[in-house]
Amino acid sequence: MTDSDAIADRLRRAPLYRVLHALARGEISSEALTGACLAAIARDHALNAWTWVDDAGALSAARASDERRAAGKPLGRLDGVPVAIKDNIDVAGLPTSLGLPGHHAAAREDAHVVKRLRGAGAVLLGKTNLDEGAFGTIGRNVHHGDVGNPVNTGRAAGGSSAGSAAAVAAGHAIIALGSDTLGSIRIPAAFMGLVGHKPTFGELSCRGLAAGLRRLDCPGVIAHCVQDIALLLPVLAGYDAGDPRSRKRRVPLAPPDWAPGELRAGVVADLAALGVSPEVVERFSTAMACVAPVFGSTQPVALDIAPMDIAATRRAALLLMEAEILAAHGEAMQSASERLRGLLAFAEGKSAVDFARADRRLDAYVVQVRRLFEQFDVLLLPTVPMAPPPAGAPEPSNLADLCALASLAGCPALSLPLSGGQGLQLVGAPGSDLRLLELGEIISAVADCGE
Amino acid sequence: MTDSDAIADRLRRAPLYRVLHALARGEISSEALTGACLAAIARDHALNAWTWVDDAGALSAARASDERRAAGKPLGRLDGVPVAIKDNIDVAGLPTSLGLPGHHAAAREDAHVVKRLRGAGAVLLGKTNLDEGAFGTIGRNVHHGDVGNPVNTGRAAGGSSAGSAAAVAAGHAIIALGSDTLGSIRIPAAFMGLVGHKPTFGELSCRGLAAGLRRLDCPGVIAHCVQDIALLLPVLAGYDAGDPRSRKRRVPLAPPDWAPGELRAGVVADLAALGVSPEVVERFSTAMACVAPVFGSTQPVALDIAPMDIAATRRAALLLMEAEILAAHGEAMQSASERLRGLLAFAEGKSAVDFARADRRLDAYVVQVRRLFEQFDVLLLPTVPMAPPPAGAPEPSNLADLCALASLAGCPALSLPLSGGQGLQLVGAPGSDLRLLELGEIISAVADCGE
Repeated sequence: MTDSDAIADRLRRAPLYRVLHALARGEISSEALTGACLAAIARDHALNAWTWVDDAGALSAARASDERRAAGKPLGRLDGVPVAIKDNIDVAGLPTSLGLPGHHAAAREDAHVVKRLRGAGAVLLGKTNLDEGAFGTIGRNVHHGDVGNPVNTGRAAGGSSAGSAAAVAAGHAIIALGSDTLGSIRIPAAFMGLVGHKPTFGELSCRGLAAGLRRLDCPGVIAHCVQDIALLLPVLAGYDAGDPRSRKRRVPLAPPDWAPGELRAGVVADLAALGVSPEVVERFSTAMACVAPVFGSTQPVALDIAPMDIAATRRAALLLMEAEILAAHGEAMQSASERLRGLLAFAEGKSAVDFARADRRLDAYVVQVRRLFEQFDVLLLPTVPMAPPPAGAPEPSNLADLCALASLAGCPALSLPLSGGQGLQLVGAPGSDLRLLELGEIISAVADCGE
Repeated sequence: MTDSDAIADRLRRAPLYRVLHALARGEISSEALTGACLAAIARDHALNAWTWVDDAGALSAARASDERRAAGKPLGRLDGVPVAIKDNIDVAGLPTSLGLPGHHAAAREDAHVVKRLRGAGAVLLGKTNLDEGAFGTIGRNVHHGDVGNPVNTGRAAGGSSAGSAAAVAAGHAIIALGSDTLGSIRIPAAFMGLVGHKPTFGELSCRGLAAGLRRLDCPGVIAHCVQDIALLLPVLAGYDAGDPRSRKRRVPLAPPDWAPGELRAGVVADLAALGVSPEVVERFSTAMACVAPVFGSTQPVALDIAPMDIAATRRAALLLMEAEILAAHGEAMQSASERLRGLLAFAEGKSAVDFARADRRLDAYVVQVRRLFEQFDVLLLPTVPMAPPPAGAPEPSNLADLCALASLAGCPALSLPLSGGQGLQLVGAPGSDLRLLELGEIISAVADCGE
């Protein structure tokens, strides 16, 4: 291995801010870095992290980036950075499989968030594997292979953005785009020791993202550290007339106008009643002991009260999601496994009135969560109710229960890694993404003090 | 009739700004004005404008207002003004019939918009009649009687906010609250020579408004003139945590930061293809000839293009609305007429997937309309495709077709009266309500120049 190979091999596992520094200083070329990523992808094929790798396109984009840098004209803040895109998000010229088998036509246009990345100079390596139909929480895919967990080996990847997380964790890409309807970014991020961000609903355009449940769907980022997400958010966020649920705001994202010592934190306390494993309860409590002094006050919060019934509301959301997936991708789903078709068929047996009833249940939940944020500035809870189950074990039904809260209410959520594939989740009121990111950096620094 | 009776009788038909002036100067007491309104309501009972009149409550509120004024402490900008509330909006202590027969429990809380009116000192006279279940466009109600048209007598009232419009037109109330899902404020306003405003979706809270189609439902105001609506909007608008579709904005409504001479107006030109009657086409063209010089430019716009197909999208919206009405009010609807139950039952025969498909059709429509507003600052079109049909004639299926555009896309719309029960509609991009109101005042002054 040459020196420059060694540098590339180290940088492909480094945080974004470190990579940008190295590219800017000329310590490495985008071509060398991209080549190292592509070589790692090829070596790690047993990880099943990718559905489609665009070697030629990526190397060509990397060389173009190097030429811009040589000319003193880098494109934007991501010029030359290799990135991974979940395979339910369109990249022009590449197929969008949604984790289904068979032939898929090449997308004609980049998704809005992909266009933003490309516009900022990112090198698009290809598309990452996911739960079949993006409908799952574990990383299982009978067509493209189950995604492996490169960090907690022998354990489940988590999903549905399994390949995006695995690509970052294995050093195939510096950052990855995922999507999160009910936890699909945060669950695999936690299982692989990464940071995952589900933005405030509507902040990132969903144009070019395959519909899951439109009132909840959010694109978002999986990265090594909070700082990387803070770098990416301004590149990705903003109004898009082409997304019917994107709304124009007249001012940018709320600035992080806070002092942590003035914030009121709510710490979810009834974890056992919510089905959280003793192991996770204990790890979370240890972390809270370290984190609590950051805040002005911390109060216990109970979520398992009747109108907040997360599991029942999540089931209502699943009916909506099944119906919407069939409405959006009915034809493509004919190639899905019998298992997935069976799950989706549930919605065919339900009436339009049942859909409206379930949707009203979500409305009621939004109001409940808003009341919580009249009392608290930030909520703290684990990301997943259990440590990563063994690879190949049946999918637990409750992996998304703790992520659903933020999803159902359109709130931003940030999952920070704890040891053992666990996650510490911060949830804020809609629009408070920057506050969460600032807070996340501080908490990352102190949360592991008990280890 | 005494002098003061004559004053009260003149003022009950006057615009809000005139009434506020008279109350502030002591030309009339709220009690005298309220008494005159109540007497007119009793005299005009054949108009079927009301489902419930709260004589005692109104007079008591009026006397309290007079006492506050005498003490030099009026409550707010509406202190002592008699107002009417459509009977699908909750008023604490009064039943909400939704136009259905039988006993209805008294509402425990005011709707958010009613609370705002009451907080500003308004005197709540009672509840106004509407199409059965708020599902109609003509003012028909087999339980409470069809609403009459006090302006164009022998003609249909228009609906569903029929009683609210009739109450203002007949001088029963100075202003009235209505609701508009697909045109229910604008249609009766046009048929009775009044101004109707459907605000930007989400600007006015829907808490306490009986659900029609939640992604389109808007409370709004029917009044004598544009200026009255401009007075009321700041009282009614604003974020409400209790409405899951209300979103916090960090700045107030966009100011009317415009010069009409710089605005690009789109004038809907393919009216005949949209099913507009020759009489309405002619009246609209005459008005446009007077109005066009106000703008920097006017361009013809065709709406009858495939992706904009208003009638088909309106039918999709009706499926959603039927399903949502059954989900929200299924039990109450058991007392509805066979006709209405038959219409709603359509949704029971449709699947959850059909609902999601129809909802996606609305999403696509939103994007189409947003593209229109990249070319134009304001769209001009008639409010209703025909002059008011004879009272008792069958309900035409297309009365809402020209109102649906703004509803489906969440845009604000203002209907200004033209002669003969016709309306001139201004539609703007979401958030441009104040611009429409400023423009509406100018256009009101010139639109009738051709008569």
